[in-house]
Amino acid sequence: MERCRLVFSGSGGQGVITAAILLAEAAVLCEGLNAVQSQSYGAEARGGATRSDVIIADGRIHYPKVLQPNVLVCLTQEAYNRFASIVRPGGLLITDTRYVKVQRKVDAQQRELPMYRTVVEQVGKPIVFNICMLGVVITLADLVRPESIMKVLEGRVPKDFLEMNQRALQLGVEMGNAAKA
Amino acid sequence: MERCRLVFSGSGGQGVITAAILLAEAAVLCEGLNAVQSQSYGAEARGGATRSDVIIADGRIHYPKVLQPNVLVCLTQEAYNRFASIVRPGGLLITDTRYVKVQRKVDAQQRELPMYRTVVEQVGKPIVFNICMLGVVITLADLVRPESIMKVLEGRVPKDFLEMNQRALQLGVEMGNAAKA
Repeated sequence: MERCRLVFSGSGGQGVITAAILLAEAAVLCEGLNAVQSQSYGAEARGGATRSDVIIADGRIHYPKVLQPNVLVCLTQEAYNRFASIVRPGGLLITDTRYVKVQRKVDAQQRELPMYRTVVEQVGKPIVFNICMLGVVITLADLVRPESIMKVLEGRVPKDFLEMNQRALQLGVEMGNAAKA
Repeated sequence: MERCRLVFSGSGGQGVITAAILLAEAAVLCEGLNAVQSQSYGAEARGGATRSDVIIADGRIHYPKVLQPNVLVCLTQEAYNRFASIVRPGGLLITDTRYVKVQRKVDAQQRELPMYRTVVEQVGKPIVFNICMLGVVITLADLVRPESIMKVLEGRVPKDFLEMNQRALQLGVEMGNAAKA
């Protein structure tokens, strides 16, 4: 694969760091790729916007920060306001309809998706919002297979919680497929 | 504070990434510092050695990778064999007596501590091994207050589990204080 640079952004508690780590681990452990995952904390974190970067590649990765992501996810208005402008021209910008009002055009494909609402309605557990988002991302950006994400989840999530993660991931994959067409 | 560079290493499942994230968040959210936290996955991760890097500083941090850590923690023999040589001369190398047999001298203070055994004996839950380790690290390296770690934990850990985390952290602090003298 080509190198892919991603930025997940939102607020603390939405699970964007966990989603980034799951993606990086799935890429490496299940698909034989290399990955770097990082977060910077500072004024941004204190202000409430969490950002987590992932780079996936089949070769070595030297510099772990992402300057212009191919894929940018914004799960809060604050994260959107702060980061929307960094998306790579021609890239992909994914926002959640419940949390973000898209206010400007960027030179990227924009996908406004009801991820939060769908998870609450179909699974009933907002805690797997981030897993649904990950399903959307891997599908729209064609990154790793859902099975690889599930395999990593199996090693981290108590058995009783696997099914709701699986459902959230599947909802994300379906939403991603629908948004592709 | 001066800038501090740390590397936590071990195997997947020991919680070294979580420990690194907790430390970075505590430094930023509770103590007004800046922090960067990252992990590289690749041949190392596939081989079973997980490594997570943290940099804490009161100024800006530009390059997020740690080349020579002031503080290196190794929780498995494989991690020790691979990383012991990168500790900064005059730095601090912390290993767990259950998992690591120290086989060579490095130009650093070496502390071999029974963290795993103590957690199992006193708390009965190996899952908080990483929190005990974090207590040792913040005490020996004088990084952040235990209260700051607890504050971050309160936002992440279900209420029923807070007490065992608190005990593990406290055990680590005591072990760190004893190892200082």
